[in-house]
Amino acid sequence: MEQRLSLVTLGVRDVDRSKAFYEALGWTGSVPPGGEVVFFQTGSMVVALWSREKLAEDSCVAAGEGWGGVTLAHNVRSAAEVDAVLAEAEAAGATIGRGGAETFWGGYSGVFLDPDGHPWEVAHNPGWPLTADGAVLLPRD
Amino acid sequence: MEQRLSLVTLGVRDVDRSKAFYEALGWTGSVPPGGEVVFFQTGSMVVALWSREKLAEDSCVAAGEGWGGVTLAHNVRSAAEVDAVLAEAEAAGATIGRGGAETFWGGYSGVFLDPDGHPWEVAHNPGWPLTADGAVLLPRD
Repeated sequence: MEQRLSLVTLGVRDVDRSKAFYEALGWTGSVPPGGEVVFFQTGSMVVALWSREKLAEDSCVAAGEGWGGVTLAHNVRSAAEVDAVLAEAEAAGATIGRGGAETFWGGYSGVFLDPDGHPWEVAHNPGWPLTADGAVLLPRD
Repeated sequence: MEQRLSLVTLGVRDVDRSKAFYEALGWTGSVPPGGEVVFFQTGSMVVALWSREKLAEDSCVAAGEGWGGVTLAHNVRSAAEVDAVLAEAEAAGATIGRGGAETFWGGYSGVFLDPDGHPWEVAHNPGWPLTADGAVLLPRD
């Protein structure tokens, strides 16, 4: 199995509401024929929004409630940009889990929860500089 | 907020066990000083493994049980490669949720569950050809 991730699908209660939320953050999605799902190109991979019940069935899991052990992160270039993205998310209707603050790992981050409670850490990690197009490249030993 | 995903962290019960699982799939991780987390470079972003309890606390959510509405996917270049990756995952200790089969969206896929039950769809989508380095680029309208 190649060391790649192609797609992260977020199960949501209302695809239109979630699409509007991510578009309010400045993202542009595409809706394929049929219209049940939304795709966002994110670097080398794709983020999708789909019905949580249908995603559960398709994923061969029980459609539990609450958080299931997966957290997304969006890294930015400065602490000030962390604060700006958190403010943008709050304005778009996100819940702020924690505001921007210095972290135990030497960076600066905060957390917002999207309309379905999916957590996004917004982080500035001085040890992980971003490329010009926003990719994160792990430091080489 | 730029249209990017930097990091997906999977909360796990035993980081060493999960690291061994993903390494058995052919992935190579790096462990930063402190040793509590594992990072895998995956295209423009990173996949991480960390304690589910610590990740819940850091993500400002309750550490629920079961699936929480996020599914990962790994796209490959042919139906035969779907079957090969599923066999590789099963040999590494994954549970097969569904074997490779044709899908309602015109592709071919199956699902495996990692040691913590995180579902991975392994898919061949003829409408999403992969680049040479494995990136998925959405078709342009």
